[in-house]
Amino acid sequence: MSQAQVSDEDIFKGHEGGKLSVAATRPISQARDLSIAYTPGVAKVSRAIADDSALAARYTWADRLVAVVSDGTAVLGLGNIGAKASLPVMEGKSVLFKTFAGLDSIPLVLDTTDVDEIVETLVRLRPSFGAVNLEDVSAPRCFELEAKLIEALDCPVMHDDQHGTAIVVLAALRGANGVLDRSVENQRVVVSGAGAAGVACAKILRAAGAGDVTVLDSKGIVHSDRDDLNPVKAELAQLTNRQGLRGGVAEALKGADVFIGLSSSTVDGDLLATMAPDPIVFALSNPDPEVHPDVAAAYAAVVATGRSDFPNQINNVLAFPGVFRGALDVGATTITENMKLAAADAIVSVAADSLAADRIVPSPLDERVAPEVAAAVAKAAESDGVATAITY
Amino acid sequence: MSQAQVSDEDIFKGHEGGKLSVAATRPISQARDLSIAYTPGVAKVSRAIADDSALAARYTWADRLVAVVSDGTAVLGLGNIGAKASLPVMEGKSVLFKTFAGLDSIPLVLDTTDVDEIVETLVRLRPSFGAVNLEDVSAPRCFELEAKLIEALDCPVMHDDQHGTAIVVLAALRGANGVLDRSVENQRVVVSGAGAAGVACAKILRAAGAGDVTVLDSKGIVHSDRDDLNPVKAELAQLTNRQGLRGGVAEALKGADVFIGLSSSTVDGDLLATMAPDPIVFALSNPDPEVHPDVAAAYAAVVATGRSDFPNQINNVLAFPGVFRGALDVGATTITENMKLAAADAIVSVAADSLAADRIVPSPLDERVAPEVAAAVAKAAESDGVATAITY
Repeated sequence: MSQAQVSDEDIFKGHEGGKLSVAATRPISQARDLSIAYTPGVAKVSRAIADDSALAARYTWADRLVAVVSDGTAVLGLGNIGAKASLPVMEGKSVLFKTFAGLDSIPLVLDTTDVDEIVETLVRLRPSFGAVNLEDVSAPRCFELEAKLIEALDCPVMHDDQHGTAIVVLAALRGANGVLDRSVENQRVVVSGAGAAGVACAKILRAAGAGDVTVLDSKGIVHSDRDDLNPVKAELAQLTNRQGLRGGVAEALKGADVFIGLSSSTVDGDLLATMAPDPIVFALSNPDPEVHPDVAAAYAAVVATGRSDFPNQINNVLAFPGVFRGALDVGATTITENMKLAAADAIVSVAADSLAADRIVPSPLDERVAPEVAAAVAKAAESDGVATAITY
Repeated sequence: MSQAQVSDEDIFKGHEGGKLSVAATRPISQARDLSIAYTPGVAKVSRAIADDSALAARYTWADRLVAVVSDGTAVLGLGNIGAKASLPVMEGKSVLFKTFAGLDSIPLVLDTTDVDEIVETLVRLRPSFGAVNLEDVSAPRCFELEAKLIEALDCPVMHDDQHGTAIVVLAALRGANGVLDRSVENQRVVVSGAGAAGVACAKILRAAGAGDVTVLDSKGIVHSDRDDLNPVKAELAQLTNRQGLRGGVAEALKGADVFIGLSSSTVDGDLLATMAPDPIVFALSNPDPEVHPDVAAAYAAVVATGRSDFPNQINNVLAFPGVFRGALDVGATTITENMKLAAADAIVSVAADSLAADRIVPSPLDERVAPEVAAAVAKAAESDGVATAITY
């Protein structure tokens, strides 16, 4: 399928009136229905929850509802376009939550970019939802915001641009290594970009046992001698670059096994030639990959992009619906590192039966993925002792 | 239909898992659908809104979305049971918005009862919704909260316990007067209760030209010599009680034409005997009317309650779905007094063809009501110059 087939007219028509609607789970057609769903019947349900707040999980939608939250500061590749303009993306996210995981969600877009005000707002709204999917918040604010929300809220919070991407990248790397019979423990991975996605990818790769990770930001290799690093990058400098490399993309790529592009920079084919033989190249910048996949294919054993019109599309939709579904299914109070690693493993397991160099991850439309991810995430939550769900 | 037919089991079963779900307006089944609803297609829509924010009304759901907002401080007759326990009521409200007016809405319940914090929260969330239905907020805080929200937000805001009730009460009184060939201009109306509903009813009755209104609070008749009145009641004392009555319910009722009960107090039949001949009695306290309708019927020409198991059920659902629908249809920036009066007139017009002493208002399930109310409200918004909708 070529992206060129979708015209602007088709796109705008597909968004007319918005992409979401709220439905009643049970119809109101008789006076009796009204007496149950509204007064006087509803008073009994409210009173029961007032007496035992745990019953809210059973008799309201909140405990299964994801708030899709953005301040519109880093919307796709468009930058800081504001809350209102971010809404189509958040509605799209809600559509995907429903389509792939059967989860209800509501977009909450905020007219403030102050981290503490966003936290305060969600703390006040806490009884209204069961989890927070943070979306399109600019770095490095996104790191502080996510950390403060996790601290302030007793429910799953995940910044998808960080961890959804990281989970799918790890799954794709495992898929590529499966095809090539390689192991991440022996690999040096170059992550280009130290924004939301780059930082989270570097961290999950370390947690997954990658041999070494070299991170590049706009100034070059992130290393501990640099005095221009924000706290997040300073932490990254400690976790990565065990070889003590210095320099830029050329120095980073020389001899590297894997390139993961998560910035809007470009990489020449010549540089890919300096990598270890038959490298793995993920050029994930959207809509323009860091290197065209046809160019990359001349050097690399496996190539992936974020685009739907090339093989190996690395798309967050493989992760986030199942991650939140699994977390909510067991009443998880948080999303642990093990839950993210388990999600990546589950994606790999779905791809396993048809693994090939041009099929290292399942299709974003593969309906098997979200349930597998959800089951794995739920199990990991239970192992980690963060599951709280009461079965009625 | 008797309310006794609905068992507790039926009620709780009707709330299992919550009463709402979010649906996608268009299915995602092919890669093409994903490219339209999400990346890369959605970027074009976001960019278009960033360039012209008015396009959000066309390409997102927000401008047609009602936030159903409560802090849980005055939930039905249950009092201050908190946000979480109020949620079943708010979900019920959303079900009614959808059922009767086709409107999408989301419950937002707040873990703060501070008026300024609630205002601040909704101001921050402003890009997420198109209107605010305030619900179950305690008096007198509800008056301050509604006023501050109207000031802070450039969209329709209505506290339904005040104005929804007032609109339907006015419609019902017009219906009763139609049956009895009487006119509100010649009537003295006693409003028992100076909470959210009582204050709003007294005001709309004055705005509709009622001859006089006498308001009772827990201390007796509200009059300007009292030194224990909060600012809202002090204003009421100026607007009402033109006869300068002093005393309690006995003094208020003597010779009165209409009794409207909006408190949880009780009224003896003996007192109704002191009213003007063949009075109109609305005993709206729920679930226990101020006077049993069978008792009231011995004295009154027309009796109404809030209950579904007696004739003449006065229920807000006759008003709020159509009011918000009409306001949103024309992009109203606020809800004016004329819009509320027009809503009452529209309800009366639907009842007109089958008016009788036991049928002074349409059934809450009458599907003709909300569209009529919406059309009348939209027209009034246009007359009042508060409509802003752009037609594409």
